[in-house]
Amino acid sequence: MQVKSMNDLFLNTLRDIYYAEKQIYKNLPKMAKAAASPELKQAFEKHRDETEQQIERLELVFEQFGASPRSIRCEAMDGIIAEAKESMGEVEDEAVCDAALIASAQTIEHYEIARYGTLIAWADRLGKKEASKLLGETLEEEKKTDRLLTDLAESKVNQDATA
Amino acid sequence: MQVKSMNDLFLNTLRDIYYAEKQIYKNLPKMAKAAASPELKQAFEKHRDETEQQIERLELVFEQFGASPRSIRCEAMDGIIAEAKESMGEVEDEAVCDAALIASAQTIEHYEIARYGTLIAWADRLGKKEASKLLGETLEEEKKTDRLLTDLAESKVNQDATA
Repeated sequence: MQVKSMNDLFLNTLRDIYYAEKQIYKNLPKMAKAAASPELKQAFEKHRDETEQQIERLELVFEQFGASPRSIRCEAMDGIIAEAKESMGEVEDEAVCDAALIASAQTIEHYEIARYGTLIAWADRLGKKEASKLLGETLEEEKKTDRLLTDLAESKVNQDATA
Repeated sequence: MQVKSMNDLFLNTLRDIYYAEKQIYKNLPKMAKAAASPELKQAFEKHRDETEQQIERLELVFEQFGASPRSIRCEAMDGIIAEAKESMGEVEDEAVCDAALIASAQTIEHYEIARYGTLIAWADRLGKKEASKLLGETLEEEKKTDRLLTDLAESKVNQDATA
């Protein structure tokens, strides 16, 4: 699609993260199933519920821009998820698998942190305050999830994996 | 490759980021060429020099682990770079293209921030202090680059792109 303005660029990037969030929503149950630690399983399950709300928020943002929600394939998230799946399949030990799952989940979170940070800055420049607020709520959730995963890794999973 | 221990997982992830850094090194000149803003062009050129040093640091980390430097394909970075290239090709306006370039570069930086954060935590658990220190230097550079890109976007590029 030809991008002629910041408005076009914003919408294209919104379609990219809309696709990405849907892929994440589809794959989080697989990651929860693969997790051995109950805390990690629960973290993935909780983040799946959050992701459902984040998808709804994106639909509200499309509305703010007078556009229908539409996905475009996000090659970055496809690559990140393919890598996460590959990593899950390679590890035999349960605790080491949990460490690998957290690492993969953090690459997912960081892609989202980058994307939402960008979308917020653009929404602000385009004068879309309500859209910026909605995207800001999601950004905070992604950052919180990333921190939670770091805490889980450092307080328990990495210790078990090197025991 | 079968992963049986945290040491294996560390090395596999090191091979992944080694591949990713080499891809970034190869693609940064294309991004610098596509940038219209002299400051952005310069930021990409500077980061290319840093990336060269980061690759050398990774080679030292391989050495700390008694392994030869080796890449394994990083599907995540391939996807992120494919998306960056696609985005470059879609935008006509120079200032909007710069905004898109910064957005893409920040998805690259955030992948690296996630990966280096993980590798540092694992190196610490594995008692590899020198490796952890080397990876920490790179992590700081990636975070600094990400902040510099945000500043450039907010102080100039996003304003020009919505003018």
